[in-house]
Amino acid sequence: MSSNFTYDRLDKDKAMLLVIDLQDGLYLISRDRGPVQFKANILAHAELGKIFNLPTILTTSAQTGPNGPLPAEILAMHPDAPLIERHGEVNAWDNSDFRAAIKATGRTQVILAGITTDVCAAFLALSLREAGYSVFVHSDASGTFDQRTAIAAEDRMRAAGVQVLSLFAVACELMRDWRNTPGTNEMMPFFDKYLPEYGFLARAHDAALQGGTPSGLPKAS
Amino acid sequence: MSSNFTYDRLDKDKAMLLVIDLQDGLYLISRDRGPVQFKANILAHAELGKIFNLPTILTTSAQTGPNGPLPAEILAMHPDAPLIERHGEVNAWDNSDFRAAIKATGRTQVILAGITTDVCAAFLALSLREAGYSVFVHSDASGTFDQRTAIAAEDRMRAAGVQVLSLFAVACELMRDWRNTPGTNEMMPFFDKYLPEYGFLARAHDAALQGGTPSGLPKAS
Amino acid sequence: MSSNFTYDRLDKDKAMLLVIDLQDGLYLISRDRGPVQFKANILAHAELGKIFNLPTILTTSAQTGPNGPLPAEILAMHPDAPLIERHGEVNAWDNSDFRAAIKATGRTQVILAGITTDVCAAFLALSLREAGYSVFVHSDASGTFDQRTAIAAEDRMRAAGVQVLSLFAVACELMRDWRNTPGTNEMMPFFDKYLPEYGFLARAHDAALQGGTPSGLPKAS
Amino acid sequence: MSSNFTYDRLDKDKAMLLVIDLQDGLYLISRDRGPVQFKANILAHAELGKIFNLPTILTTSAQTGPNGPLPAEILAMHPDAPLIERHGEVNAWDNSDFRAAIKATGRTQVILAGITTDVCAAFLALSLREAGYSVFVHSDASGTFDQRTAIAAEDRMRAAGVQVLSLFAVACELMRDWRNTPGTNEMMPFFDKYLPEYGFLARAHDAALQGGTPSGLPKAS
Amino acid sequence: MSSNFTYDRLDKDKAMLLVIDLQDGLYLISRDRGPVQFKANILAHAELGKIFNLPTILTTSAQTGPNGPLPAEILAMHPDAPLIERHGEVNAWDNSDFRAAIKATGRTQVILAGITTDVCAAFLALSLREAGYSVFVHSDASGTFDQRTAIAAEDRMRAAGVQVLSLFAVACELMRDWRNTPGTNEMMPFFDKYLPEYGFLARAHDAALQGGTPSGLPKAS
Amino acid sequence: MSSNFTYDRLDKDKAMLLVIDLQDGLYLISRDRGPVQFKANILAHAELGKIFNLPTILTTSAQTGPNGPLPAEILAMHPDAPLIERHGEVNAWDNSDFRAAIKATGRTQVILAGITTDVCAAFLALSLREAGYSVFVHSDASGTFDQRTAIAAEDRMRAAGVQVLSLFAVACELMRDWRNTPGTNEMMPFFDKYLPEYGFLARAHDAALQGGTPSGLPKAS
Amino acid sequence: MSSNFTYDRLDKDKAMLLVIDLQDGLYLISRDRGPVQFKANILAHAELGKIFNLPTILTTSAQTGPNGPLPAEILAMHPDAPLIERHGEVNAWDNSDFRAAIKATGRTQVILAGITTDVCAAFLALSLREAGYSVFVHSDASGTFDQRTAIAAEDRMRAAGVQVLSLFAVACELMRDWRNTPGTNEMMPFFDKYLPEYGFLARAHDAALQGGTPSGLPKAS
Amino acid sequence: MSSNFTYDRLDKDKAMLLVIDLQDGLYLISRDRGPVQFKANILAHAELGKIFNLPTILTTSAQTGPNGPLPAEILAMHPDAPLIERHGEVNAWDNSDFRAAIKATGRTQVILAGITTDVCAAFLALSLREAGYSVFVHSDASGTFDQRTAIAAEDRMRAAGVQVLSLFAVACELMRDWRNTPGTNEMMPFFDKYLPEYGFLARAHDAALQGGTPSGLPKAS
Repeated sequence: MSSNFTYDRLDKDKAMLLVIDLQDGLYLISRDRGPVQFKANILAHAELGKIFNLPTILTTSAQTGPNGPLPAEILAMHPDAPLIERHGEVNAWDNSDFRAAIKATGRTQVILAGITTDVCAAFLALSLREAGYSVFVHSDASGTFDQRTAIAAEDRMRAAGVQVLSLFAVACELMRDWRNTPGTNEMMPFFDKYLPEYGFLARAHDAALQGGTPSGLPKAS
Repeated sequence: MSSNFTYDRLDKDKAMLLVIDLQDGLYLISRDRGPVQFKANILAHAELGKIFNLPTILTTSAQTGPNGPLPAEILAMHPDAPLIERHGEVNAWDNSDFRAAIKATGRTQVILAGITTDVCAAFLALSLREAGYSVFVHSDASGTFDQRTAIAAEDRMRAAGVQVLSLFAVACELMRDWRNTPGTNEMMPFFDKYLPEYGFLARAHDAALQGGTPSGLPKAS
Repeated sequence: MSSNFTYDRLDKDKAMLLVIDLQDGLYLISRDRGPVQFKANILAHAELGKIFNLPTILTTSAQTGPNGPLPAEILAMHPDAPLIERHGEVNAWDNSDFRAAIKATGRTQVILAGITTDVCAAFLALSLREAGYSVFVHSDASGTFDQRTAIAAEDRMRAAGVQVLSLFAVACELMRDWRNTPGTNEMMPFFDKYLPEYGFLARAHDAALQGGTPSGLPKAS
Repeated sequence: MSSNFTYDRLDKDKAMLLVIDLQDGLYLISRDRGPVQFKANILAHAELGKIFNLPTILTTSAQTGPNGPLPAEILAMHPDAPLIERHGEVNAWDNSDFRAAIKATGRTQVILAGITTDVCAAFLALSLREAGYSVFVHSDASGTFDQRTAIAAEDRMRAAGVQVLSLFAVACELMRDWRNTPGTNEMMPFFDKYLPEYGFLARAHDAALQGGTPSGLPKAS
Repeated sequence: MSSNFTYDRLDKDKAMLLVIDLQDGLYLISRDRGPVQFKANILAHAELGKIFNLPTILTTSAQTGPNGPLPAEILAMHPDAPLIERHGEVNAWDNSDFRAAIKATGRTQVILAGITTDVCAAFLALSLREAGYSVFVHSDASGTFDQRTAIAAEDRMRAAGVQVLSLFAVACELMRDWRNTPGTNEMMPFFDKYLPEYGFLARAHDAALQGGTPSGLPKAS
Repeated sequence: MSSNFTYDRLDKDKAMLLVIDLQDGLYLISRDRGPVQFKANILAHAELGKIFNLPTILTTSAQTGPNGPLPAEILAMHPDAPLIERHGEVNAWDNSDFRAAIKATGRTQVILAGITTDVCAAFLALSLREAGYSVFVHSDASGTFDQRTAIAAEDRMRAAGVQVLSLFAVACELMRDWRNTPGTNEMMPFFDKYLPEYGFLARAHDAALQGGTPSGLPKAS
Repeated sequence: MSSNFTYDRLDKDKAMLLVIDLQDGLYLISRDRGPVQFKANILAHAELGKIFNLPTILTTSAQTGPNGPLPAEILAMHPDAPLIERHGEVNAWDNSDFRAAIKATGRTQVILAGITTDVCAAFLALSLREAGYSVFVHSDASGTFDQRTAIAAEDRMRAAGVQVLSLFAVACELMRDWRNTPGTNEMMPFFDKYLPEYGFLARAHDAALQGGTPSGLPKAS
Repeated sequence: MSSNFTYDRLDKDKAMLLVIDLQDGLYLISRDRGPVQFKANILAHAELGKIFNLPTILTTSAQTGPNGPLPAEILAMHPDAPLIERHGEVNAWDNSDFRAAIKATGRTQVILAGITTDVCAAFLALSLREAGYSVFVHSDASGTFDQRTAIAAEDRMRAAGVQVLSLFAVACELMRDWRNTPGTNEMMPFFDKYLPEYGFLARAHDAALQGGTPSGLPKAS
């Protein structure tokens, strides 16, 4: 058997992470996910860079205007990351400081999330593809006006060879094996915080280990 | 403090259970729930009568025609229940055999589910209210053309004092206490079959008790 | 003008707060809201008791079984609140310790949230109404199998005179005036955490005050 | 690194804008977006031609019949644009006057919106692709019977290399930099009118600059 | 025949109109309707006061903070209306200036719209009902976090005798007869602006009168 | 047992049928149901009057304007029914000819459907309730801007004691027994035309009777 | 400019039309569109063959079993079309009579609709693509268990080069020009029947021509 | 005619079936389908291996932790299938025992279903594609956090040449002809259990054969 498909798989040693315009003001116009979930997702995005020790670049668009600054939590997580303030360019790739920061990482895989998905994220993703990078758009941490716009933007990116991944997929493709570092000890608290359905499953499991009593179901069910 | 509200609560010693036209053919026009779930719900409805030993009455509308017979599973569960075959009356209350069967139970609370919600279930529920019965419509086991029609029919019944209950509410209001009989031993297998999200929660719990290992979450989470 | 309607309005000096079976396992079967949002909502519910210093009562159903314990965060917020562990009663009102705890508060308004909405919350709410209490169901912090089941359960409670309120409504009806205590200083951080669309609006506003530049819109727009 | 992907990016000096059958009557059968939003979107589409000074071509299908004329607002915006009245051809490309008007622009990128998406827009887009043009369908300003039909039509166009863009993406890809002309001064009022969630964000920001008071949030949040 | 139901019908000589906290910032957290439609609806609400010459009262909550000022368009429509700035009270009825302004109108029917539906609109509506007013909530111009919250808030108000009306219902119940003033001449342009599906129907109709040609349908269809 | 609820049940000898503004133009702004289904529903509504020989009254609002005439099919079904053309009154009850036509029927139950649900149908329904009539709104044949508006309008009517019924409920409550006239022979073709899921069930059943072969399922399933 | 895209456009002289298992019984399991609309769509599909005089082939799967016969209306429209009864093959292409009938048409473009989309339609479409045919799946006239299944099946077909078209797109791509035959005279009645939003637009337009009066809108709107 | 498309069609003699992490705990976080339906789908998946006698491989991820064991029903169906317990690898292809088990089957087509779709299923599917296998993802039996995540994951797999199939498509493509073995006798009971809308159609048909009476429809309908 043979195949001409190559699985371009995230590798924590090849990847960088970009935070694109996930700004306090722009957050308010992102409505393709609920606001509580979307806030959690953008913090999770930033935290992945920290947990996996990925070169991380922050950028903003006109942050003294209505778009606002990045969330304080993200700035606190990445005090040493370059923060490229763009004063006009919509597409971050049009900013030479940003391009230089990207190149300085020496990495070839780009994980990015941005607001809005169809503009700030998509324009950059297409430019990165043209420049030869592997591009992984973290869909859960990208936002735009409505779900239909988001999906159409993702389709535009897919047509350029971009891979569109969920939070769980980004995290697990980076981790690969629960026995790695980061692995169980780092990622279980991460999932407990950002994917609480998984966290509460683990909490209920651990509670059972600490003095649980049988459910009453017959054995074989 | 005082209140002029009385909680008319299901009581397994006062309740009867009615299976109204849950026929093989009519099932095919019920589209306010997915077909796999709806089939499970109507079997669950019938099984509640068996588990709680409630007087149970079956009725059908023109069952040799397109409406078809009752599901074989329901007939097998209630071999001795009266089956009132109606040959014309849409509202079962218009059939004197049916009225007699209701009265013969000596019960005052009626749990019913029917297809369609807006016709066979609603017409009967309204007649039962007029006749003085407490009426509990089991919503999950009633079906009709679409969800909006179902909800409007439930609103019509509510305006007549009918209570509209979910499968879980009917079951738990009848059981009242997990230490009763029927209680844990009877109801856990029932929920495992008909509310599998609850069943799988119990299965995962029991598996943890039989050799589980910690999740890796820190203790206090 | 006259009216026979009396606005039964939450009063922080008359209200108590109940946490009904918001357990780690039961959380997993609650699907009428997304899991990230629902976790935030149940923590917000518990935190309201703390912020407004309301008498707070916790109760669980069979917590050593699959239902699991209460979330660690809630237990940590209310170390001194009574925790009534029910070992069989579905309706907490059927438990005499729970009834005693309610009565011991001396309060007449009950704010409650529970899993599931249609069983643990609804059964108790109906019993409380019968006992003469004013009942406010905090809808955002109650969960059940699906949205249709939730709304039907809320309708059942409304028919008994229960008021169904959102998180924002519970919080604001308790606060009444931003100049009160709790008021702006206590509630803005609360909303920043639990209603982040409001929090980010405030963040963007504050950022504008600290060095913002005009948007470019003409003045009069 | 290398890539065989070329980012075919809108360029205001290469692009033309087409208004395809956005007629008063056909508007009434477009139901994949709400009518208030859809009217705003089609006016925004026409206004983009004006703001960016793009060669603009209007065409209609049987406009004295039920399809009706173009909206008065569009005609008023483009008094000098060619208006090709088609008296039979469904696909505007089958009309030689229309083809001539296209060629006369000397442009190679086509931005188009039409009613219906699956017929008037899609047929033309496919013909334009065959003729070698870069085609950008402005999805927000195209309408059809329902959302599923719209998306399937967009998929058909994507398979032919058409790019499907939102209003915000078309506008920003044309503008590229807020410091350009058109830039902030032209586009902020445009967004205030057509993307009011962005406009109100700017309004609230500007209001804060003109005498706002702190929100009460602690500094670091 | 007799009935104990009285149709409490809007009367332009008995009604006042309230604009409750429809502020630029709060608009951004209103997500139960699309933003383009919601902006149109709140402007329509304010314009109804002008067209029908209703006593109109504006009020805001903490308008120098994140909630922001009222939209410039609304202020421009009502330069002489009282604008009650509340500096703390959530429920406008708790503000004595507001109560005085209401009473000063001498009217008994209140048409109101507010953000959020569940707090600013609902709290006031309930207080107005208690004070004996007829209350008509203009649902299309009220907004909140999501649709489920909106509908639950409307249900709470209905239980207090509030009538919940659409934009079209408010407008037509005030107009009553197209031959009145305001009537056709005033309301057709209003509907053209705010209910464009009706406006485009009229436009297409008028176009037919000005030189239309037959559709090709046979006569009798 | 006793009850103070009276089931106000449709009776073909007491009922009249009203066609309220189901006009060709207004049909185009009705979007709470798909257009194919809605057309079928309004024809079904009119046909019920014919099948059950109910006194039927037609009325239109400004039918030479954009609202348009009644569908040709409805006029053809009721050549002798009074057609009250209103030249200004929104609420048909405000038209004395219409009131006279209603009274002339001598009937006390009114089945009505109208466009829009929230205006033409609701205003009339409320007036009819005030005048003492039993009112049955045929929901499936009433239409308005969107589903949320429709349901809110139905809730307003319910609060006045109006009963909101589906097509199937209206038809079956009038028929009562399949052995009546109209009964099986009249209603099966009606359902085949207007509720084709029921019609195709009957067709498949009849086909089985005319030479069907077993499905291959084992007997007992 | 050049392009390597060829627009494979329907041509009434190259196309054939297939009716694949649109049987009375299978219709009952098709739930991705409402039943009234779906019945209309499958009749429209068959009628297109008749109007455009396309070679038409009917086929059924086990039609004496539960799947049932084709609808009587379709058989009546195509009394002379070959009807290939398959007694086992799921994929019609596996039936040699069917393959022969296809080949006998001498056509290269295949328009097909089938139940279910994911099995009977998709399997055949993929086989036809492998055999070199141009394949146009008429999506509106194909049905399956739910919408997600339908769309996934269409994606599978798209990946094989199948074009997925709406009813309006199939009809208009075949007609091309309203001045052709079939053209206005044939297609307007067709659309009046099957796309009634378009039909009613034409009816309202024609009514305006026959004595309409102005809407009251000012001229320029 | 020619085509460069090859229909890669499931062949029961070339296919193997994989059960990927369909574990009791992970089931609880799968919310893109209702829980009753999803449980049925995963059992159906496993049963297909048994009915078609496909080489079947089971694998789990950390099954003594919160993910839990495989459902007892699946283990009972496949007592002799290899069960590869992974103790760390997220992507089963990273486990050498699993790779060996795959290779040992000697098959080239892989049918797989997994939880979650975007991680356990997608990662493996992409690796299998790289290794040259034909991959068929059984979508109905795969689950993840929500529907949007599921569809995006399926799109990622499609881009790698994976085919995404429904339960009905997998079953019918394996069966090919109802006269085969497995054929009618094996598959009708299977569909009765897992696609009950098809099962009840068959039941109603068989009931008609056993004493049905005509529906009352006229012959020709």
